[in-house]
Amino acid sequence: MAGVENGILFKASVLQEWTRKIFQHYGVPEKDADAFAASLIDANLTGVDTHGITRMLPTFMKRLETKVLGAETNLEIVREQASTALINCNNGIGQVSSEYAMNMAIEKAKKTGIAMVATTNGNHFGSCSYWSMKALEHNMIGFASTNAPPAVAPVGGAEAMLGTNPFSIAIPAGKEKPFVLDMATSVVARGRIHLYAKQNMEMEPGWALDEQGNPTTDPHEALKGFLTTIGGYKGYGISLAIDMMCGVLTGSSYGTHFPGFLADNLVDPTNLGCIFAAINIESFNDVAEFTETMDNAIRDIKNCKKAAGVDRIFIPGEKEAEAREKRLAEGIPIPEIIVKDFVAMGKSLNIPFPAH
Amino acid sequence: MAGVENGILFKASVLQEWTRKIFQHYGVPEKDADAFAASLIDANLTGVDTHGITRMLPTFMKRLETKVLGAETNLEIVREQASTALINCNNGIGQVSSEYAMNMAIEKAKKTGIAMVATTNGNHFGSCSYWSMKALEHNMIGFASTNAPPAVAPVGGAEAMLGTNPFSIAIPAGKEKPFVLDMATSVVARGRIHLYAKQNMEMEPGWALDEQGNPTTDPHEALKGFLTTIGGYKGYGISLAIDMMCGVLTGSSYGTHFPGFLADNLVDPTNLGCIFAAINIESFNDVAEFTETMDNAIRDIKNCKKAAGVDRIFIPGEKEAEAREKRLAEGIPIPEIIVKDFVAMGKSLNIPFPAH
Repeated sequence: MAGVENGILFKASVLQEWTRKIFQHYGVPEKDADAFAASLIDANLTGVDTHGITRMLPTFMKRLETKVLGAETNLEIVREQASTALINCNNGIGQVSSEYAMNMAIEKAKKTGIAMVATTNGNHFGSCSYWSMKALEHNMIGFASTNAPPAVAPVGGAEAMLGTNPFSIAIPAGKEKPFVLDMATSVVARGRIHLYAKQNMEMEPGWALDEQGNPTTDPHEALKGFLTTIGGYKGYGISLAIDMMCGVLTGSSYGTHFPGFLADNLVDPTNLGCIFAAINIESFNDVAEFTETMDNAIRDIKNCKKAAGVDRIFIPGEKEAEAREKRLAEGIPIPEIIVKDFVAMGKSLNIPFPAH
Repeated sequence: MAGVENGILFKASVLQEWTRKIFQHYGVPEKDADAFAASLIDANLTGVDTHGITRMLPTFMKRLETKVLGAETNLEIVREQASTALINCNNGIGQVSSEYAMNMAIEKAKKTGIAMVATTNGNHFGSCSYWSMKALEHNMIGFASTNAPPAVAPVGGAEAMLGTNPFSIAIPAGKEKPFVLDMATSVVARGRIHLYAKQNMEMEPGWALDEQGNPTTDPHEALKGFLTTIGGYKGYGISLAIDMMCGVLTGSSYGTHFPGFLADNLVDPTNLGCIFAAINIESFNDVAEFTETMDNAIRDIKNCKKAAGVDRIFIPGEKEAEAREKRLAEGIPIPEIIVKDFVAMGKSLNIPFPAH
């Protein structure tokens, strides 16, 4: 988890309302601004602060201000079949297009068993799991993925050719918490390195290479260099497959052909590609039987013999679900240095950052 | 690659015909025996000899002989929707059910854009990529995955809870070779550790754990212990997702609940679960535009700046495609010791192993 441990605690709903107002200030319609804010605050709730307002809000504000990110999201269905669709986001807000696309995949999967909806000409959609998890309440398996601008070198390469290209798979359970995998195909996400750089913290070895391709634990050096993929050629293969499906298949940016992304280009649209899929459990099994077996499978793993010094085995998504419960009750910690930024930002826009 | 370097060279078609006759001897109908043999020989052609007749034929013969693997494959459609189906293989031959399921996914995807067909009560289907690649000639992206009996410990665990749970994604290109990723979710296969143990060689760190769940580079300790997943919790998450989709979703064996597999149980059926999916390119993009961009994406990667000492960057599937060209022209190398076995096997069944 890329989580903030210490900070001033704020209620999620209060942060979400403030964030919504900020987006509305830049011309985002209220409903869209709320969906946009909800996705960022949910990342904070689950402890994935790199994808929450903690890091992303100033970036999105700058992109809205410079109009490189469209405040209004005009979605257009380019191609559609019974179980597929391609949506042109027309450079609108990634969270708005993603909500539309994931819902469309779910509705189609209700009728045909499985569906995949892709988006093109889009923007950063936050956490993958926020979208894959939308399938859970419909007794479906959810999948979401996005490509991203180059930050990772292929195996044998000394050049950033691939994004961190993350994906998420969410699978419902019964009494146990759902299985929710959300992972970048790099050893760590770039956001984690940004967070370490901001706090001047040394990284763990093996996360990244410097500009010359040498291993480094200095986040500032790593930001000038490359990330590495998990499992060498295996992670490289997964990352490339995601780029080909999110980028090439949808006719979006791919590989090194990314005109811009977050803070590095405030002129050219990102033209991000994303895919969303839903699989209806009922098309393969009875829901009750499936969720009961899922509970058994999860308990088997949790009850297995532990390695020395380990007292608990986690299922993917479990830590995030617990963080959500804790932070909903206690509040979201925002580091003091970022609170100061938010107070200043709020003051300049006449949208005061709330007192905690 | 798990490839044989030295051996006596045999023509692929000759080996396939002999293998087909062996399977027919055990009561496999001719058409099924040919499909079964073709999949094994293709693994040999691509250099993945661990999945070819080199290692698998005696195992399959023993399973057919003891009737723990059914010679006749009676497929039954249990559930079906426009884009999905669940097929009961009734403990028939994995290659026969996989061919049926993958073709069904392709036919459905032609109509609806994407389809997923799952099989239950099945058996070992060979290489994942043999099935995912069936989609390529239809201008589709192919996906195939299977779960497998436990050999891998979850992160923090000291017990085998998960299989190597491999998957393959195949994506067509234009003039370039297609992208074909075929990977286990463990760092290495158990066979590699056996090889190191035989030679008393120290393994690389990160491959395996000892009996207590501690990392080890001693192959003898590793053989008493467990395999690890790529990227720690990430590979563990992918492996668990595959087990939940191939095993739990389809109502097949999962986790530690595997009655048997290859050589270790000749009484109880394996009840393996597999999934096959196809995505129609045309549902998202023009095929010509897609394949042209795929070629560009592939060339970009291959032409990127190389790390010191590297003179070529490979795209997943490229080495296997080159091995196929070479072995189709020159023949498949079978190690001398295995040729002797095959000659003896052929003699006892009165199906003479061909002269090379």
